[in-house]
Amino acid sequence: MNINVELWGAHTGNSLRAAIALEEAGVSYSVRRVDLRGGEQRTPEFLALNPAAQVPVLIEMSDQARLILPQSNAIMFYAAARSNGDLLPEAGSTAYFAVLERFFYFLTDVIGFSATGFFLKSREIPGGDVLYDHVIDRATQAERFLAASEYMAGDKFSIADIAAFTIIWAFRERMDWPNVPQLHEWYQRVLARPAVQRGLHAFCRRSVDQ
Amino acid sequence: MNINVELWGAHTGNSLRAAIALEEAGVSYSVRRVDLRGGEQRTPEFLALNPAAQVPVLIEMSDQARLILPQSNAIMFYAAARSNGDLLPEAGSTAYFAVLERFFYFLTDVIGFSATGFFLKSREIPGGDVLYDHVIDRATQAERFLAASEYMAGDKFSIADIAAFTIIWAFRERMDWPNVPQLHEWYQRVLARPAVQRGLHAFCRRSVDQ
Ligand SMILES: N[C@@H](CCC(=O)N[C@@H](CS)C(=O)NCC(=O)O)C(=O)O
Ligand SMILES: N[C@@H](CCC(=O)N[C@@H](CS)C(=O)NCC(=O)O)C(=O)O
Repeated sequence: MNINVELWGAHTGNSLRAAIALEEAGVSYSVRRVDLRGGEQRTPEFLALNPAAQVPVLIEMSDQARLILPQSNAIMFYAAARSNGDLLPEAGSTAYFAVLERFFYFLTDVIGFSATGFFLKSREIPGGDVLYDHVIDRATQAERFLAASEYMAGDKFSIADIAAFTIIWAFRERMDWPNVPQLHEWYQRVLARPAVQRGLHAFCRRSVDQ
Repeated sequence: MNINVELWGAHTGNSLRAAIALEEAGVSYSVRRVDLRGGEQRTPEFLALNPAAQVPVLIEMSDQARLILPQSNAIMFYAAARSNGDLLPEAGSTAYFAVLERFFYFLTDVIGFSATGFFLKSREIPGGDVLYDHVIDRATQAERFLAASEYMAGDKFSIADIAAFTIIWAFRERMDWPNVPQLHEWYQRVLARPAVQRGLHAFCRRSVDQ
């Protein structure tokens, strides 16, 4: 069966998370840049893919069917499903729940505060800075996840590491690195992964500074 | 094999979501109330379960092992794994991705704004009301998910409906119901489910008003 995958996105955290997951899963895909400043997310063509006018959106075309998948986190699960258990162990296993626990820690207790902080800041409403401080605080607490293992949910790289990495990468200049040595080592290790590098650059025209 | 499940929680959205999922999956469990006002989440006993000092936490004890699972959403996936595909179809299927897309819509684009809005409000920092308005707005947009199907992600009740229900339930007095007739019907239908009723009451001493 012929499978063709496209990732529509922009150089923002949500699209990067999706791109890194696809890269780590070894899914080949083509990038479709959506110009958010130019309002391309509100063109009829794009709204037909996602009426919520948001990126990223994944499209999988095969001989039989077309899957249109918005939501960066759903795309991460798509990548995981195509990774043969590499990014997310088999449903119901202990390792599966370990990954999900950490994945949802980063998604709901860290990334969620960044997303809503950005929402307030972009509207010049106060409150955003407090939410950003909380992001740093919760990211810092992740130091303890690495006390006994190399990755966020054990000895294997998983979607929990991708979620953790993209948010910590976005806040890298504000992290108190000497205070979190294990997190710092983990960060360097993840940053050095070729698939992570490819994902980080997927939507860039210029090179991404590291 | 003997399996014993406990759900540690309080009468808050995150615990209710977990309780409803367990009820819908037909998992039998016992409730352990954690008195958040009394600071029980910071006792050594509780911190040993979850160093983040948050509810809910699920504990599964079997003859061989003990699984300790914080994070309400991870607990929902636990329930789904025990529901034989009822709450979340088989990984990799089209129906699986449809459920995940809607689940993550509610989690990241609706519930996330409520959680951080509450965070700001409880600290008397401005910004919370704007985030709450956004919750209403995004919940209202879910009307379109019901245009062609009975549930949020098709013709079957799923974890997407549980995520949608708990947040809309929490904001039920502020919804402009006449403006969203399908959502209103869906809401009544979900509210009437016996498992939903049991989950909503799991952490209540008094009865929950509807
Ligand atoms: N929950 C969604 C959120 C997606 C989202 O917020 N996308 C932003 C960019 S990061 C967007 O497309 N915004 C459209 C705009 O700026 O008009 C996801 O995880 O994919
Ligand atoms: N992301 C976590 C968040 C859990 C959470 O925020 N729990 C709150 C109650 S809803 C809590 O335990 N707060 C502790 C406190 O109030 O000190 C989840 O989904 O379970």
